[in-house]
Amino acid sequence: MKAGNVTTGPRLRVVLEPEIALGPGKADLLERIRDTGSIAEAGRELGMSYKRAWTLIDELNRCFRQPLVETSRGGSGHGGAALTRRGEEVLASYRRMEAATCAAVREDLEALRKLVASSPDDLLAKAC
Amino acid sequence: MKAGNVTTGPRLRVVLEPEIALGPGKADLLERIRDTGSIAEAGRELGMSYKRAWTLIDELNRCFRQPLVETSRGGSGHGGAALTRRGEEVLASYRRMEAATCAAVREDLEALRKLVASSPDDLLAKAC
Repeated sequence: MKAGNVTTGPRLRVVLEPEIALGPGKADLLERIRDTGSIAEAGRELGMSYKRAWTLIDELNRCFRQPLVETSRGGSGHGGAALTRRGEEVLASYRRMEAATCAAVREDLEALRKLVASSPDDLLAKAC
Repeated sequence: MKAGNVTTGPRLRVVLEPEIALGPGKADLLERIRDTGSIAEAGRELGMSYKRAWTLIDELNRCFRQPLVETSRGGSGHGGAALTRRGEEVLASYRRMEAATCAAVREDLEALRKLVASSPDDLLAKAC
């Protein structure tokens, strides 16, 4: 099961070029890197391996004309990481699109949830 | 690579209850069942096995209070299948949400695509 499927509500993925997409997982990863200053720590908080987190960031960095995350080799462990200004912009853009999607689908989604066999009323509020 | 990642643009998944989501794959499958009258044929057109297609439909049917697809045992092969009225409603609802998402994210997505290293200008139009 994907982690993003635990909470009910909409999930947005934007395919930027064939095979390269930005979705909730990469957005959360960027956000944790911003907050923790470390790819390893960000990955750990999201339950992914360092290799997995690094691969996702490498994919994003290659996809954009300018990197979203810059790393510095630290004396111990895996060194530090930070979002570039471009990284901040892309993350903010994704969060705006996510919020716009929530608003755009809310009415239909509420109607749809009433047709679902088991749907605790408090679940939708968590997702949007 | 997921089939849905070939064409650039937004992809919407709605999580209806924990672990049960409706996204482009299931929506396309419902649509093909409506058009072909067969789960096997619908799956074939989408490049998925009969077992896979049947499992997705069974999951959807169990998720909703009323089934979305009804099947009849035919004399040969896997019998026929059709969308119920509820199935038509759910598919229409998903397509409305998908269109609303496209409109809601268009501006941000166009700006984002300009930051991508390789983004042929004609790709976005295909997705929305």
